[in-house]
Amino acid sequence: MTRLHDLDLTAGRLPSGPHNTITDVNGVRVGHHTLNSGEGDAALRTGVTVIVPHPNDLFDEKVAAGTFTLNGFGKALGLEQVRSLGTLETPIALTNTLSVPRVADALLSYMLNQRPDIGGKSGTVNPVVGECNDGFLNDIRARAVTEAHVMAALEAVTDGAVEEGCVGAGAGTVAFAFKAGIGTASRTVAEGRFTLGALVQSNFGSRDDLRFLGVSLGQRLRGQYWPTKGTDEDTPPDTTPGSVMVVLATDAPLTPHQLERLCMRAALGLGRVGSYASTSSGDFVVAFSTTNRYPHFGDPLEFTAPRLHDNSVLDMLFLATVEAVEEAVLNSLVAATDTTGFKGRTAYALPHDVIREAVGER
Amino acid sequence: MTRLHDLDLTAGRLPSGPHNTITDVNGVRVGHHTLNSGEGDAALRTGVTVIVPHPNDLFDEKVAAGTFTLNGFGKALGLEQVRSLGTLETPIALTNTLSVPRVADALLSYMLNQRPDIGGKSGTVNPVVGECNDGFLNDIRARAVTEAHVMAALEAVTDGAVEEGCVGAGAGTVAFAFKAGIGTASRTVAEGRFTLGALVQSNFGSRDDLRFLGVSLGQRLRGQYWPTKGTDEDTPPDTTPGSVMVVLATDAPLTPHQLERLCMRAALGLGRVGSYASTSSGDFVVAFSTTNRYPHFGDPLEFTAPRLHDNSVLDMLFLATVEAVEEAVLNSLVAATDTTGFKGRTAYALPHDVIREAVGER
Amino acid sequence: MTRLHDLDLTAGRLPSGPHNTITDVNGVRVGHHTLNSGEGDAALRTGVTVIVPHPNDLFDEKVAAGTFTLNGFGKALGLEQVRSLGTLETPIALTNTLSVPRVADALLSYMLNQRPDIGGKSGTVNPVVGECNDGFLNDIRARAVTEAHVMAALEAVTDGAVEEGCVGAGAGTVAFAFKAGIGTASRTVAEGRFTLGALVQSNFGSRDDLRFLGVSLGQRLRGQYWPTKGTDEDTPPDTTPGSVMVVLATDAPLTPHQLERLCMRAALGLGRVGSYASTSSGDFVVAFSTTNRYPHFGDPLEFTAPRLHDNSVLDMLFLATVEAVEEAVLNSLVAATDTTGFKGRTAYALPHDVIREAVGER
Amino acid sequence: MTRLHDLDLTAGRLPSGPHNTITDVNGVRVGHHTLNSGEGDAALRTGVTVIVPHPNDLFDEKVAAGTFTLNGFGKALGLEQVRSLGTLETPIALTNTLSVPRVADALLSYMLNQRPDIGGKSGTVNPVVGECNDGFLNDIRARAVTEAHVMAALEAVTDGAVEEGCVGAGAGTVAFAFKAGIGTASRTVAEGRFTLGALVQSNFGSRDDLRFLGVSLGQRLRGQYWPTKGTDEDTPPDTTPGSVMVVLATDAPLTPHQLERLCMRAALGLGRVGSYASTSSGDFVVAFSTTNRYPHFGDPLEFTAPRLHDNSVLDMLFLATVEAVEEAVLNSLVAATDTTGFKGRTAYALPHDVIREAVGER
Repeated sequence: MTRLHDLDLTAGRLPSGPHNTITDVNGVRVGHHTLNSGEGDAALRTGVTVIVPHPNDLFDEKVAAGTFTLNGFGKALGLEQVRSLGTLETPIALTNTLSVPRVADALLSYMLNQRPDIGGKSGTVNPVVGECNDGFLNDIRARAVTEAHVMAALEAVTDGAVEEGCVGAGAGTVAFAFKAGIGTASRTVAEGRFTLGALVQSNFGSRDDLRFLGVSLGQRLRGQYWPTKGTDEDTPPDTTPGSVMVVLATDAPLTPHQLERLCMRAALGLGRVGSYASTSSGDFVVAFSTTNRYPHFGDPLEFTAPRLHDNSVLDMLFLATVEAVEEAVLNSLVAATDTTGFKGRTAYALPHDVIREAVGER
Repeated sequence: MTRLHDLDLTAGRLPSGPHNTITDVNGVRVGHHTLNSGEGDAALRTGVTVIVPHPNDLFDEKVAAGTFTLNGFGKALGLEQVRSLGTLETPIALTNTLSVPRVADALLSYMLNQRPDIGGKSGTVNPVVGECNDGFLNDIRARAVTEAHVMAALEAVTDGAVEEGCVGAGAGTVAFAFKAGIGTASRTVAEGRFTLGALVQSNFGSRDDLRFLGVSLGQRLRGQYWPTKGTDEDTPPDTTPGSVMVVLATDAPLTPHQLERLCMRAALGLGRVGSYASTSSGDFVVAFSTTNRYPHFGDPLEFTAPRLHDNSVLDMLFLATVEAVEEAVLNSLVAATDTTGFKGRTAYALPHDVIREAVGER
Repeated sequence: MTRLHDLDLTAGRLPSGPHNTITDVNGVRVGHHTLNSGEGDAALRTGVTVIVPHPNDLFDEKVAAGTFTLNGFGKALGLEQVRSLGTLETPIALTNTLSVPRVADALLSYMLNQRPDIGGKSGTVNPVVGECNDGFLNDIRARAVTEAHVMAALEAVTDGAVEEGCVGAGAGTVAFAFKAGIGTASRTVAEGRFTLGALVQSNFGSRDDLRFLGVSLGQRLRGQYWPTKGTDEDTPPDTTPGSVMVVLATDAPLTPHQLERLCMRAALGLGRVGSYASTSSGDFVVAFSTTNRYPHFGDPLEFTAPRLHDNSVLDMLFLATVEAVEEAVLNSLVAATDTTGFKGRTAYALPHDVIREAVGER
Repeated sequence: MTRLHDLDLTAGRLPSGPHNTITDVNGVRVGHHTLNSGEGDAALRTGVTVIVPHPNDLFDEKVAAGTFTLNGFGKALGLEQVRSLGTLETPIALTNTLSVPRVADALLSYMLNQRPDIGGKSGTVNPVVGECNDGFLNDIRARAVTEAHVMAALEAVTDGAVEEGCVGAGAGTVAFAFKAGIGTASRTVAEGRFTLGALVQSNFGSRDDLRFLGVSLGQRLRGQYWPTKGTDEDTPPDTTPGSVMVVLATDAPLTPHQLERLCMRAALGLGRVGSYASTSSGDFVVAFSTTNRYPHFGDPLEFTAPRLHDNSVLDMLFLATVEAVEEAVLNSLVAATDTTGFKGRTAYALPHDVIREAVGER
């Protein structure tokens, strides 16, 4: 797997964490389960990616969370409660659009199995699921992701390196008319005191608007690397707007209110790479702080929590968000590989030599 | 079934439509499917209620829609897209909290069956599902609502009279520590030119705060009609906050922006009956206009649509919303009957003679 | 001055603080300056009311704050920053609609005089000003409120009892077609551990919709206590929607996110008294916590702050908000007196004997 | 005056309108009044810029409008009503932070003079004023902008070419540690059928983050073109976050709901040039449609209005927004000239030869 750093490129000016992944935030783990089977009308190129905020009981130790919807043509589930209460109490799962309910139901099973009190004296639980429409390469109407697949992704979680590109929920996604998928990156601020990580499921953008570290790479490749399509249904994603899911994690002690503001900065990172947030795009951002945890039960009445001062390094965390999102999207492109799927359609990866030539020598 | 009008009572000053239901809005239909089986630990007191905005293809003729979240401790699904795009393209389904994903998946099946182009050239579809936690009377962890139940509710839709109380998604809900459920009401404005209908799934409120047409009826009944509970899990809903789903329909030509404002007025109606919108409550409102329809495909580029002037009778539609929501909640109480369910617990209905005595003779 | 308690009436079930005013929240002070001069076309019935969150330097010790806009036909100023940063750093001033800029400029003078660093190394300052349209009784086009009047109100601040009714920013306002003005109330929760206070400038509602502790008092008085008007411009406020400003203060350690949620409960209190939040109404709520203070300068990077647990007594603070807002509006009516002003128009106060008779004997 | 186009550069791929200004939107006019006087502690480098949506009576023919707040550390006034009602009924004025109230008061005078019915039978009026903190070059505490200055700007409005850089409200602003100011640009979509124009008052960004058409121009100039500062108060804006106001105009028939979505795309344009939306930044966007006009009085009850279909060219208007905002910011930098002001501080303009060398030859 190749990443932006492997091409001796980086987005922005802040240092990355050790793995340059969302798992650089202490305690955060990521797991994938990929469905890659069949050809033609039966091709499955989809999957599940889960992000687990910390290793403890998430229901008992909720993490402070915020969300922002840049464009809401999307079926992401669970964001209402995150917005209203400012907490996240389950893993976040990403999948394809039409599989959201089944993945949410699987997350419910996972939580109900762990906690017999949920649904009883402890109230209900709020699963969070995001999605992109991978229907260009995947038989999305099959709703192929099952509870077993979600459990497999949850069992596969690791810290350290994260697989990127055509994996998990990114198996079938396409961005800027190139094969894309899962990407991640991290930045550190305050001399390494705080880490900010981003993970994206990228499925958005028109080729003409791609800005690869400032270079209009898509325009240079106009007419290349993309087969002519014959039917209406096979309209190339060149003109298909798509979606993007962004998950942000940090160990800085941010409040829900600050995390919501953090989420808005993800839009600026998407702007850097060329998004115009299409009207048909589901562009959702969710952020959480691993150090700002809220107990489920309200006894005692109040508790003290750390809070980053707005006028200290919050700005640097905002910049870290912009840069990590930019790099995560680019990583999703760089790590992807040519993929043929549904109805024999192919999405080509952005060739590394083109990147090196056009961007690397600036 | 008894309703507020049957007690010679009404909320507010505006006239009702012919049935005093949400189906008074021309074209709107409501269907229920009720699960009422088992006893003790196996008791199911739950179901599905669907609201269908008009009889035509909803995906092709989307209705203008808006939403408002008074408190977001809830798992309602599909509201992000309603908020962002201002359209509704499926029936709205109500159910219990933990059954939301399965009901959403069933709505997807319903739409995918109707439209082979969904998931392909026509993009994806956004199901809208609301919920209340009926776990006091229902084995909510069973997630008992299936696709067949949702289809049964969709097949059962009718215009005209609407069954209320312990039916469909209201089979197991409790409000103000009395048995509640589904309630509906309507108001007309501009001398009958426009109709506004409300339907609620009521599951909120503390007994002490109930204001039944202004009368603190719950306080008068303190200590009565409610058994003592022995264990923690059996804490009476007297102190359980709960949730409420509100669906508003109108034939006035309101834009998404105006419908969002309409939704906020539902909060005022909830205030009238005694809600304080508990922190553990999912209080969601969705509104749509049956006359303001948007085609799915964007050709031609623009179209003309009617729009109610803000400074004409929008105020009366706001008042209609307040009154219809107030009366819908009261109808959900009046129409309900004593119900014994999960773990042998009983929720008692508000006795009609008490209402007559305390309220009717003012 | 007569208050609801003087009529042996109260709203709701929670106990009040010692003065039953917003100043029951320790450190909060209120000041008025009233303009009451002239007759006919030159009548001034307006003023300024200021709420000061604590006696220390507000710019150095900002208070956590939140806001909610129920309907935004209004010219309230400074709420964008409160919403985004979650802090309040000046007194809140209330006045008439067209005087907002001059009052804001006066608040700037007040802050600039205190702090020579504002506008320089310490950045700018965000005054918060709310308003109602008192043009029925006041020559509002005169924009008569000057910097000196604002300074007079700021010098007049006191803790303890608060003057209500036709005073300060309430000198010329009208609610439910009765003379209204400033009203305040408080509630305590957790056995007196926390206090919640509300202050309103009331100028909203149609007479037919007034619910005075649940009694439709306006409907009983239809046709009475109100002169016939002859010209268009003299349309009685019976049909004029108006506005309401609500200020909430608490010593509970609420975060900005929680305070925003608190603000939404003010709408429920307005619902209780009969608001439908007219399309032409500016219904704004601002809340702050006196114990949750943020320093201006960001050194050290982080600090710890207390936070009330959502699942402890936040619900009781929500209920306290509903009740305090309801009672504050009623106090604004009860404390008001008949007032003749602009163009010789008269707004009559709601007679106490009518209240006693209709409400007191329930 | 030099613009980006004069350097043979352009942002993005869509064509510009004839003047490449916001005034390319038929009927839109812009006027400036500049205060450029004094030296040292008495230096005024500030002013007013007004945008007038159309030549008719704005109060009678309100334009559909929307708004978005990317970061709300700012004192912009009037946005609450735009957000809630979706209409704009006055010119938009831009100025410095501490002059907002006086400019708003002047706009009130302007409207009250035109319409004797405002404040009486026609209700009140909602001025919209935006701002940036120009205190690095301007004696901002002087609040030097008067009613006469605002009237002068309103009298100076023209269509056609727009003066950019150090003019009007841009006289004293600084972006990316270079002298900036007012900038504008336009794009056309649907083969010229619709025009989208942007105007910015730019005062944001750190030098290291500037991306000039993708080139990290600020990093290349690190240490150059900027004098060393000696005192705390003279901290160079290199580390001062600042603000940005964005005004968008279009002749496409967009609804308030669509205009709000349009505003969010301005953030993507700011992302392209390197914004991270500092916590101390007031980043506000206001958009209006000149063809979607709403009458003040509500008779008849409803009216028909054109509406662009979401799935037609709304995406191209989103892209047009991104590109026009990017180019407007760059124009504000290119058109600016070296400026010495308050306390003898100097902000240097970005040298054109550096731009040509670094960007022009890509």
